[in-house]
Order: sequence, then C-alpha cells, then structure tokens
Amino acid sequence: MRHTIAVWVQNEFGVLTRVANLFSGRGFNIESLCVAPTEDPEISRITMVTRGDDAVIDQIIKQLRRLLPVHRVEDMTGFAHVERELVLVKVRADDETRTEVTRLVEIFRCKIIDASHDTFVIEVTGDAGKIEAFLNLLKPMGIKEIARSGAVAMVRTAADPDL
Amino acid sequence: MRHTIAVWVQNEFGVLTRVANLFSGRGFNIESLCVAPTEDPEISRITMVTRGDDAVIDQIIKQLRRLLPVHRVEDMTGFAHVERELVLVKVRADDETRTEVTRLVEIFRCKIIDASHDTFVIEVTGDAGKIEAFLNLLKPMGIKEIARSGAVAMVRTAADPDL
Repeated sequence: MRHTIAVWVQNEFGVLTRVANLFSGRGFNIESLCVAPTEDPEISRITMVTRGDDAVIDQIIKQLRRLLPVHRVEDMTGFAHVERELVLVKVRADDETRTEVTRLVEIFRCKIIDASHDTFVIEVTGDAGKIEAFLNLLKPMGIKEIARSGAVAMVRTAADPDL
Repeated sequence: MRHTIAVWVQNEFGVLTRVANLFSGRGFNIESLCVAPTEDPEISRITMVTRGDDAVIDQIIKQLRRLLPVHRVEDMTGFAHVERELVLVKVRADDETRTEVTRLVEIFRCKIIDASHDTFVIEVTGDAGKIEAFLNLLKPMGIKEIARSGAVAMVRTAADPDL
C-alpha cells in the first residue's frame, strides 16, 4: 500500500541519513522525499511517500519514533489529507508545438515561468492525478527536463488525530 | 554562499544516503532537499540547497561525480535559473482572522485547498522571497502547521551549460 509519512526531526543533517537508512536497510524504495525547515528553525519536516507491506511500515514507524532526534511521526495513510506536488517542466515550444503547449497550460492552470525561442519552463502544482495527466499530454510535445518536488502533504483539520 | 545543486542518480534508495553523507560528513547543513522520479523511471533527481565555503562545495561536487550511481551533477549557482517552492500552511481562520487571511490569499494568488470551521489549508508556490513575505504576513494570524517542499530549480534554457 502507498503510505505518505511526515516526520519532524531535529534540524541536523545526519538525521536525514538515519531516517533514510531505516527504510533502505529493509529494502524499501522511497518514491519521493522532501525535507525543509518548519516554523521552528530547529525542526525540519520530512515528507515521504513509500510503498510496501503495511505491517513492515508500521514497524519502521515505531523505530522512527524511538530515534532520538525524531520529534513526531505521522502516517497520513489512514486519514483524510491534502497532497500536492510542484513540478517544473522544460518543454519544446517551437512553431510546431507552441500553440498546443499554451492551450494545455491554460486548461491545467499552470504558469509559464521562462521562455526561450524554442522552449518553455512550466510550473505546475497539483495532486498526483493532475500532475500525471498533464505530463502525459505534454510528453508528445517533447519534454526536455523535469524537476519534481515529490509529494507535500497535510492532514485535513477535521481528520487530524492530534486535535 | 548559497548553492542550489541538482543531482541525477540511479533510482535506488541507498543512493540518497550516500549523497547526503558526503555533505553531512563534512559538517555541511542542507537547508532543503527533495528527491523524486524523472521522465526516466530508473533515474531520480535530487535538488538541494546548501550554504558554505565555495571551494569545499566544489570538492564535494567532484566527489559526487565519482559516486557510481550518480549520473550528473549541476551546480546552478553560477547560472541563471528559476527556483520555486511549494508550501502548504494550516492557518487559523476564525471570525477574527478569516477576512484578512482571504485577502492575503488573493494578493499572493494562493489557493485555499481545505477549510474547517476555524482553519484554512493554503497552497502557495513561489520563489524564496514570495514565500518568506507571505509566511511573515500570515504569522500574526496564527500558523498551526507548515509543510514545505524545499526549492525545486531548473537552469534557464538560454543559460544552460549543456546546450
């Protein structure tokens, strides 16, 4: 099953390695991971998406909670949550493709944030379904480069287990 | 100096640990890091932001290039590039703050993606300056939770060293 997990850790970089090791040590592949500061400068928040056996992931989460610089772990999988990803795509935009690319950008409410004589860089934000649909439609135009943030997620207030 | 570095690696999770170790082993703190798949399912792209002595970072980048599952390393610091971050913010939105929060969301062209009777979850995308300005204005309203992707970046086509 696909799990989206948030981990609040002390802002020391060795911590990311220790958290990552818990997963890779058991052969788990992480689909995406992002780590960035929170409102408390001493604490960083890791959001990661992984797939695997629920029981094993539960075990890893228990171990995570025992890692000293880990402040909190939240497996959002069982709770209603919002999930978004940011993607930058460099796509061919010459005389042949420019009109169609611009049309797709409008339909998906994306932004063109850079342009050269034959490329656009497009910024798109959305859930996994929207991102996948957009990239699939863009692919025939000629994608030159993609940079994805990976999923960022938050439990909906009404479903928050801590409230 | 602040460096934004993109690293293309084989999609095996142990690789992230090895890349991270190169930095933490030298006491470098990573401000943000994100890793997600690229258009080639076998290759993941890591984008990271770090600060430190330019000469030492150059050394680390040389070592990165020698790491076997690393396909390519790009230090964007010297090149014109676009940089964006995605942030989800849960903020207090009760009778006292709702109007002001909604006004800020309009000014900064953000999106409210979840609402309860006394909170909003806001999605905001932008460069570091916009994100910081928005969070600073939102802070007095009562921020309950923040989830940031960290910077995602791409070299502008006209400045691309590979073209």
